[in-house]
Amino acid sequence: MAERRLRVGILGATGAVGQRFVQLLEHHPWFEITALAASSRSAGQTYGEATRWILNTPLPEALADRVVLPADPEALAGTCDIIFSALPASRAREVEPRFAAAGFPVFSNASALRMEPDVPLVIPEVNPDHLALVRVQQKRRGWSGYVVTNPNCSTIHLVSALKPLHDAFGLEAVIVTTLQALSGAGYPGVPSLDIIDNLIPYIRNEEEKIETESRKLLGRYTGDGVEFADIRLSAAVHRVPVTDGHTEAVVVKLKRRATLAEVKEAFRTFRGVPQELGLPTAPDPAIIVREEVDRPQPRLDRDAGGGMATTVGRVRPDPIFDYKFVLLGHNTIRGAAGASILNAELALKTGYLD
Amino acid sequence: MAERRLRVGILGATGAVGQRFVQLLEHHPWFEITALAASSRSAGQTYGEATRWILNTPLPEALADRVVLPADPEALAGTCDIIFSALPASRAREVEPRFAAAGFPVFSNASALRMEPDVPLVIPEVNPDHLALVRVQQKRRGWSGYVVTNPNCSTIHLVSALKPLHDAFGLEAVIVTTLQALSGAGYPGVPSLDIIDNLIPYIRNEEEKIETESRKLLGRYTGDGVEFADIRLSAAVHRVPVTDGHTEAVVVKLKRRATLAEVKEAFRTFRGVPQELGLPTAPDPAIIVREEVDRPQPRLDRDAGGGMATTVGRVRPDPIFDYKFVLLGHNTIRGAAGASILNAELALKTGYLD
Amino acid sequence: MAERRLRVGILGATGAVGQRFVQLLEHHPWFEITALAASSRSAGQTYGEATRWILNTPLPEALADRVVLPADPEALAGTCDIIFSALPASRAREVEPRFAAAGFPVFSNASALRMEPDVPLVIPEVNPDHLALVRVQQKRRGWSGYVVTNPNCSTIHLVSALKPLHDAFGLEAVIVTTLQALSGAGYPGVPSLDIIDNLIPYIRNEEEKIETESRKLLGRYTGDGVEFADIRLSAAVHRVPVTDGHTEAVVVKLKRRATLAEVKEAFRTFRGVPQELGLPTAPDPAIIVREEVDRPQPRLDRDAGGGMATTVGRVRPDPIFDYKFVLLGHNTIRGAAGASILNAELALKTGYLD
Amino acid sequence: MAERRLRVGILGATGAVGQRFVQLLEHHPWFEITALAASSRSAGQTYGEATRWILNTPLPEALADRVVLPADPEALAGTCDIIFSALPASRAREVEPRFAAAGFPVFSNASALRMEPDVPLVIPEVNPDHLALVRVQQKRRGWSGYVVTNPNCSTIHLVSALKPLHDAFGLEAVIVTTLQALSGAGYPGVPSLDIIDNLIPYIRNEEEKIETESRKLLGRYTGDGVEFADIRLSAAVHRVPVTDGHTEAVVVKLKRRATLAEVKEAFRTFRGVPQELGLPTAPDPAIIVREEVDRPQPRLDRDAGGGMATTVGRVRPDPIFDYKFVLLGHNTIRGAAGASILNAELALKTGYLD
Repeated sequence: MAERRLRVGILGATGAVGQRFVQLLEHHPWFEITALAASSRSAGQTYGEATRWILNTPLPEALADRVVLPADPEALAGTCDIIFSALPASRAREVEPRFAAAGFPVFSNASALRMEPDVPLVIPEVNPDHLALVRVQQKRRGWSGYVVTNPNCSTIHLVSALKPLHDAFGLEAVIVTTLQALSGAGYPGVPSLDIIDNLIPYIRNEEEKIETESRKLLGRYTGDGVEFADIRLSAAVHRVPVTDGHTEAVVVKLKRRATLAEVKEAFRTFRGVPQELGLPTAPDPAIIVREEVDRPQPRLDRDAGGGMATTVGRVRPDPIFDYKFVLLGHNTIRGAAGASILNAELALKTGYLD
Repeated sequence: MAERRLRVGILGATGAVGQRFVQLLEHHPWFEITALAASSRSAGQTYGEATRWILNTPLPEALADRVVLPADPEALAGTCDIIFSALPASRAREVEPRFAAAGFPVFSNASALRMEPDVPLVIPEVNPDHLALVRVQQKRRGWSGYVVTNPNCSTIHLVSALKPLHDAFGLEAVIVTTLQALSGAGYPGVPSLDIIDNLIPYIRNEEEKIETESRKLLGRYTGDGVEFADIRLSAAVHRVPVTDGHTEAVVVKLKRRATLAEVKEAFRTFRGVPQELGLPTAPDPAIIVREEVDRPQPRLDRDAGGGMATTVGRVRPDPIFDYKFVLLGHNTIRGAAGASILNAELALKTGYLD
Repeated sequence: MAERRLRVGILGATGAVGQRFVQLLEHHPWFEITALAASSRSAGQTYGEATRWILNTPLPEALADRVVLPADPEALAGTCDIIFSALPASRAREVEPRFAAAGFPVFSNASALRMEPDVPLVIPEVNPDHLALVRVQQKRRGWSGYVVTNPNCSTIHLVSALKPLHDAFGLEAVIVTTLQALSGAGYPGVPSLDIIDNLIPYIRNEEEKIETESRKLLGRYTGDGVEFADIRLSAAVHRVPVTDGHTEAVVVKLKRRATLAEVKEAFRTFRGVPQELGLPTAPDPAIIVREEVDRPQPRLDRDAGGGMATTVGRVRPDPIFDYKFVLLGHNTIRGAAGASILNAELALKTGYLD
Repeated sequence: MAERRLRVGILGATGAVGQRFVQLLEHHPWFEITALAASSRSAGQTYGEATRWILNTPLPEALADRVVLPADPEALAGTCDIIFSALPASRAREVEPRFAAAGFPVFSNASALRMEPDVPLVIPEVNPDHLALVRVQQKRRGWSGYVVTNPNCSTIHLVSALKPLHDAFGLEAVIVTTLQALSGAGYPGVPSLDIIDNLIPYIRNEEEKIETESRKLLGRYTGDGVEFADIRLSAAVHRVPVTDGHTEAVVVKLKRRATLAEVKEAFRTFRGVPQELGLPTAPDPAIIVREEVDRPQPRLDRDAGGGMATTVGRVRPDPIFDYKFVLLGHNTIRGAAGASILNAELALKTGYLD
């Protein structure tokens, strides 16, 4: 491992996901935050001034007085070795390529480039081999750096749970209904008057993201691209009055017959590359299976595995398809900042940050 | 119509559903509350003393000083002509038959007898003809009265929405995921510590009720019983921090092809017997179709049609089955007390209360 | 009363308070909405398009297709007889005087002009005589119209409850701690992430408004101004996760001794000019006193008197001052739109709209 | 310190506060849980079976299979050295004396014995010398063990904040209005239907506890009793929809003049015996002063100092008394189990557990 920690710059550092990057990296063994960048509105202020801190651990004192930089490669040149991006999609589409072109490895939580054919969309437990796509990307675009993305917050937990089933039994069809937390909408996000004693059966573009990203994640790396998995997916999404933790009710149709015990066993015994490599942010186990009739629940289970695990419960036969279950995971840790960090850990350990 | 209003006794009058009966009947044109009955713990107190009133309209003054009676036919003899039952299932199983045997027509919201072969389970818009089953019931059991039931609070809105699709296109399979309100659990019901910033992916027996009651409701009355509808159903239920109003995400597979426009048209033009007869509690329309991307929502739509309508939204094609949509309805009005009242109105207007 | 209804224009008609004006005036016997005005962003669209309707009764159909006008007197000339203003303070300060100058009687919920010496700040039950200040205002400013204001949403219920005590026993000091609803912050207002499982012990300028407006309301009209009441007031305000209904814990020091029974009697027997005149929007009684140990509560009591009453409970001796109690009232009905409407009703009935 | 950890028994181990004891003691350097006791309903089951675990860290694995004992001294004889009691008051009144008589030092969170003249009511930062009262208690009652109590959850944070002001300037009068969390009512506690979109302006006996316990805590130990502090106190309490963290709005009248800077300085520089002794559970600082206009807030500040600190904010002059401020603290950590543990740590370090 590196003798000294890699220097990290965070784009969009003042927002909800940016704050999670700051929180999760505060004591990271391999990475050290050396640059905080945000919109021109914030640039020039200290991080403490520019940030409306919304997490329940304090803003790290060492960063409070750090001056926020503008989110462009010139401003960050020499300040850091790699980039984590918490930019909104519209900004990311324009800014991230400029950082990659300037030589930075960019680990992005933004949706902007996820579906680009030469941009890896990676969950280290699911498709670590897709990381190789950065070489295709660099060649094609002439970049010395690159962009690696992670999926959207509801997709990541869904696909984490689907992976062992797909490996063991083959997935034919998946119907997922989500009950998603408020922090998924960022800050300020959902107005309180819209959600107290209420729920909203709609999140813009979310169903599309789940249905398409999942197929790329479970797809096959061909050496110069990804062949999407041939799985039919249908998603219906809802916003509920929960601060953190997405819940998803899933029904699956399998290609091969499986007993209930085999399905649970597939969840329980699942280990991915991050667990094998002992990556610092990797949860172990990656998937927690609960047997209580009323779990998982957001407030009780979202912090499992430091917010990096996916918890599965109520695994049971389905009268129409084969099995149904409910899953839950933290949407701004594993579902956002933690996902990018784990991607960077994988990249470092597998030679993509040398 | 009757020159004087029918006299009504309410069993379980002090509980959450009992209070709804009291509220909805306060100004009813055909029915007048003349007897309030509850458990032996409450009997003997005034209704005002015995009731922890939880609705946001005041406890009707005229009833506050009424003495609560014990829930047995002897105590109510001569005080009322028909019975509404808001008893818990375990009590209902024992008490309701005794009232029916004693000659009372009983309109029950309890689940106890719903699935008995000779007990009609009725939604007036869906299967008004099943009411005739009371004659079978009377003959078989030797009762001068009878018991009519209405479905559980999530089933009733689901089946109300399914009915026009089943009529027009035939239903092959239905997957429903519910987000159910707290009042469905009665009072005191769900502890606040279990549900603030949380949700619970489980409600005891609810999935079973949805899956079986629906098939009886959409079944065919054969003259001496009900032949269940041959529809495959799968339900996954969740309790969410919403006071009133059940939301349900539905995916349907149809027997015959239908365009999106035809599906919406089926919802929109649906009229049932209650609408034709102009029953006092019948909503008109019975089904409201909303076109906004983010409706229905509990706080905005649960009171539609006086809490008696079912609101449908986000009707859209489904990539696996045929169509998906979200529906919402009030769970203690149409989903409980209002359902029993509408059943009684139907019974009165169609000669079962002569 | 007027043979035809007065024609009403609403400024800021698309916002949270503007919607309440629309809702409360839909079936008003004296007023009829003929003009809807809003910011230039909304002007030109239909009211249905421009409004994100957040109330749980439907947007009145008759208004959905009405074209929204810009909020200036030229645009509204000839369309209406009086104006209700739901403008934000910064806009109100500039726009309302222009309407008054153009001859419109303006009934404003905005804080902008409340503390102007020649602008009446009125609660009809408390200081109806202050309305005469409009004549001073017109003379001083050369306006043919005028501006009448109502107090802020927490002040109005506080002063409504203080009035009978001040009349009967004299108020020396008042300490009030508020627990205020989210709708008081308008829409979008408070982000949900800031308030789920949380509260905020701060609302900008609110403590100052309570402390100063109360003294003007309870002050004496001198013929050309208002002599503020000599009462010491201290306010501490909090935002809590409640949609509607402000709760206020009050401790009062009286000038004259009073028994607990006398204090309650003062609340109970209080009647103001609106009750005497039978104004259509006036609640009767204006103050409801509850004896249960745990009332008032927002969800149970905010709609008392159609949202126009103030409910008082837990009246009890205080070990330091004289008495303490808790009060509750609807903050966007009596605390905003309803207050302006009642002011207009008073003005109409007492000759200020002839 | 002790070479081996003291063996600890917990009474009421399955309840909400009992769970907090288990959670907080899991890795305690001085204490080790060796006995779990609960009501006869739970006794005989394993702790895992008997407990509906509601905390968001897992039930400690090492305790899941431990058999729950009945809460009587015979059953616990030989199993532990000291007792923590999370019993409800009615049980505590009967059970705790029996444990003390049997030789156990009992550190109780129950209210039952708090106001007994010979039972110390202790906050280690406030009145550590009151602990000596156990010798009076032992002599008077002939017990070889003793009972030490900690105050109620809202009193403890109030008095922690008042202490530095009382020391520095003398307190004459205190008016406190609380906004209390749901976990203060235990489990199941407050029904969700009573508190979603609502608040309750009442908690049984809570105002009395605050008003009397505070005077004992700030009183003077006389060698054989406690002379209550001569401070006038008035409390008004409210239950709000917050899971954990009590907020309190406080107005104080001081005996000696103090500037705002001096008041803040008194809070900031406050250190008590636990901080001097470096007790393991002691927060340092004990009082956190925040300068943001909108802090403290439950979700952001309740876990400060591991849930053991009291956070003070919005310190400002009061127009009637001298100063007002808002304080916040965790009600089941510092406000319950953590308070008892800190008392036991104090007792151990100061020779009462030898």
